[in-house]
Amino acid sequence: MLPVAAESGQATGLMTALFAAVSGISGTGLAVVDFASHWSVFGEVVMLLLFQIGGLGIMTLASVLALLISHRLGLHLQLTVKTETNTLNLGQVRRVVLGVVLISLVVEAVGAVALFLRFWLGYGESFGRALYSGVFHSMSAFNSVGLALYPDSLMRYATDPWVCLPIAAVAVTGGLGFPVLFEFLRRNRRRWSLHTKITVPVYLGLMAFGALVVLVVEWGRAGTLGPYGVGDKLLIGLFHGVMPGTSGFNTVDIAQLQPATLLVNDVLMFIGGGSAGTTGGIRVTTFALLAFVLMAEVRAEPSVHAMGRRLGAEVQRQAVTVALLGVGVVMAATLILLATTPFRLDDVLFETTSAFGGVGMSTGITPKLPMTGQLVIIVLMFIGRVGPITLVSALALRERRRRYELPEERPIVG
Amino acid sequence: MLPVAAESGQATGLMTALFAAVSGISGTGLAVVDFASHWSVFGEVVMLLLFQIGGLGIMTLASVLALLISHRLGLHLQLTVKTETNTLNLGQVRRVVLGVVLISLVVEAVGAVALFLRFWLGYGESFGRALYSGVFHSMSAFNSVGLALYPDSLMRYATDPWVCLPIAAVAVTGGLGFPVLFEFLRRNRRRWSLHTKITVPVYLGLMAFGALVVLVVEWGRAGTLGPYGVGDKLLIGLFHGVMPGTSGFNTVDIAQLQPATLLVNDVLMFIGGGSAGTTGGIRVTTFALLAFVLMAEVRAEPSVHAMGRRLGAEVQRQAVTVALLGVGVVMAATLILLATTPFRLDDVLFETTSAFGGVGMSTGITPKLPMTGQLVIIVLMFIGRVGPITLVSALALRERRRRYELPEERPIVG
Ligand SMILES: [K+]
Ligand SMILES: [K+]
Repeated sequence: MLPVAAESGQATGLMTALFAAVSGISGTGLAVVDFASHWSVFGEVVMLLLFQIGGLGIMTLASVLALLISHRLGLHLQLTVKTETNTLNLGQVRRVVLGVVLISLVVEAVGAVALFLRFWLGYGESFGRALYSGVFHSMSAFNSVGLALYPDSLMRYATDPWVCLPIAAVAVTGGLGFPVLFEFLRRNRRRWSLHTKITVPVYLGLMAFGALVVLVVEWGRAGTLGPYGVGDKLLIGLFHGVMPGTSGFNTVDIAQLQPATLLVNDVLMFIGGGSAGTTGGIRVTTFALLAFVLMAEVRAEPSVHAMGRRLGAEVQRQAVTVALLGVGVVMAATLILLATTPFRLDDVLFETTSAFGGVGMSTGITPKLPMTGQLVIIVLMFIGRVGPITLVSALALRERRRRYELPEERPIVG
Repeated sequence: MLPVAAESGQATGLMTALFAAVSGISGTGLAVVDFASHWSVFGEVVMLLLFQIGGLGIMTLASVLALLISHRLGLHLQLTVKTETNTLNLGQVRRVVLGVVLISLVVEAVGAVALFLRFWLGYGESFGRALYSGVFHSMSAFNSVGLALYPDSLMRYATDPWVCLPIAAVAVTGGLGFPVLFEFLRRNRRRWSLHTKITVPVYLGLMAFGALVVLVVEWGRAGTLGPYGVGDKLLIGLFHGVMPGTSGFNTVDIAQLQPATLLVNDVLMFIGGGSAGTTGGIRVTTFALLAFVLMAEVRAEPSVHAMGRRLGAEVQRQAVTVALLGVGVVMAATLILLATTPFRLDDVLFETTSAFGGVGMSTGITPKLPMTGQLVIIVLMFIGRVGPITLVSALALRERRRRYELPEERPIVG
């Protein structure tokens, strides 16, 4: 990257620049150099544009693919005005792109204003600095990047709800995904789609679980929540319940978290956010579908139901496929990192799930990774962001030819 | 437990005794006191009987349940002579029990003789001692217990193929499970059941993968394979490829293994061995079914096939259920241990998967666990051993009432 992009005025190495570009576009926000101190304002603005392009791109791509699938299967997705035809036309795609851009800019603007006012009025920053800071952190939150302008992420604002809550709100909005946001903005709010009815409660439920674990496990620990009062503890707990499924800012030192907290974060980061949102991971609906399959099986129901709707066998198999491949990819990456670095499983699994989920929280090992390790993280960030929807589209859109049927046989399970 | 059972002549605490009993019956072989030095010969013989009862019990129970399922579903399992009726009669159950006892005793006897000869002739032990040692280790191997009469497990025999190979062979035989062994012994060997066609190659393939990882990762490491010659390295690698899916003896110091090796072992231990065998875990067929679902989905096949047979939707869902619940149970146990002990994820996950898989290899933390931690391990050993088959039987044997069908809807996956 150009010398002008770095604080030091020296050219940034190819690998560092590649890492930064993928991390920015994928919105993961993992970094091999400290973001705040390494990059100049020019570099920061370039990164900001990468976040925005990445965020808009992934939301648009995923929404259009989802539309395409629903058209092909004859199941209308309520992303655009219903048309008579069963094919996707340019007008619909344009409407999705416009919708994504509009929603993104509006949410980012609202967040930016809230943060700007706080930085300007609450912290006495200059108008220009406060505005830049507000815009930067709002965009970083909405696009699930989670990079802050401070070397300690947002730890200095850990106890300030006027900073933490707007950022969390913007991050959750981006993480819900365009299909859900689109439905929120429709005029007819009587009938919610199954997708929204699954995504919203499960996403919020996962966050509540994450917050609960942080609070219970870290409540009295000296390095994390211990020094804070009850109100501050609750704020930090809430913030860290939201972050694994969204942006990945942090207001406590991740490296100080108890291994149990890290493991729960691993799971939440692996699941990620809503479909066609700005996060990565296998996505909330994939996780929920597995839970519905499990519940149907345990309740002995002949078909799988979710919130008053039946789930077809194909969508179940797709969820299983996405989850299994996700586990496989993360495990393979974890193995490679374990075998080629001196780090242990707690830290490595945290870093790989953080990359796969596009979260970007880190216990601090990413800058210390060798070249192969950085490449592994780059691949994970990419796969986590675009892998699942691409895979599912490929699976759903193919022609399925009927083969002759083989006789059924049942191996012993368990 | 009785004072006479302990080497010291003092009564063993209730918790230690309970742990030993569950560990013995479930064949896990994890221990809170060092087996070889804590128990007297009387205590060892009591444990030996527990192994045998546990091994025979689990094989019989699981085989009968599998028979029951196959009868109920009208799919004959080739465990007994075919009958005209579609119900399970006492004669068939008796034949299974007899078969299990006979196969167990014969395999154990063959292993015991091989080991006895080696200990007697190769190491100059007294006739009685060598015989006892041969019987003990053969029974410990076949019932997947993995307890040795030495504080260092089998590390002193690491380079002796005349000890390691018989133990590995007996362990694999027990791990394959009764349905597979029964088919091996049939007269008509033309047509293998799907269960056997899946179990044998997948089980051996997992072992080969485990051995490969041990060899590649540990080849030059000072604490493990480093000091050994090439032949010895291969023997130890082979032995440690077999052990995660079977007994859990060790010939290198587990605590010295690289985290990557530990993680691969975690996965292999979680999968465990064959159905109705002496191991625990989700079982080889459950793992294989998930792989078949994945392959069918990726290949766009409308139904799931495995080795020339079609797999019904029910058996797929059962495999998903067993795997998900297995992951859930192990994760919950891991979280509890992480939150209540100072140990880190590498060691804790190894211990929980080892308990769930009935393997009993340990990095050494089990004796240091607090009471709650020991209870968690006890529950895991129990669930891993009898949980999956019990669950699947419950799932498969219930009446499934047809409900009115709800309209289908498709959430976005990925
Ligand atoms: K992020
Ligand atoms: K064992």
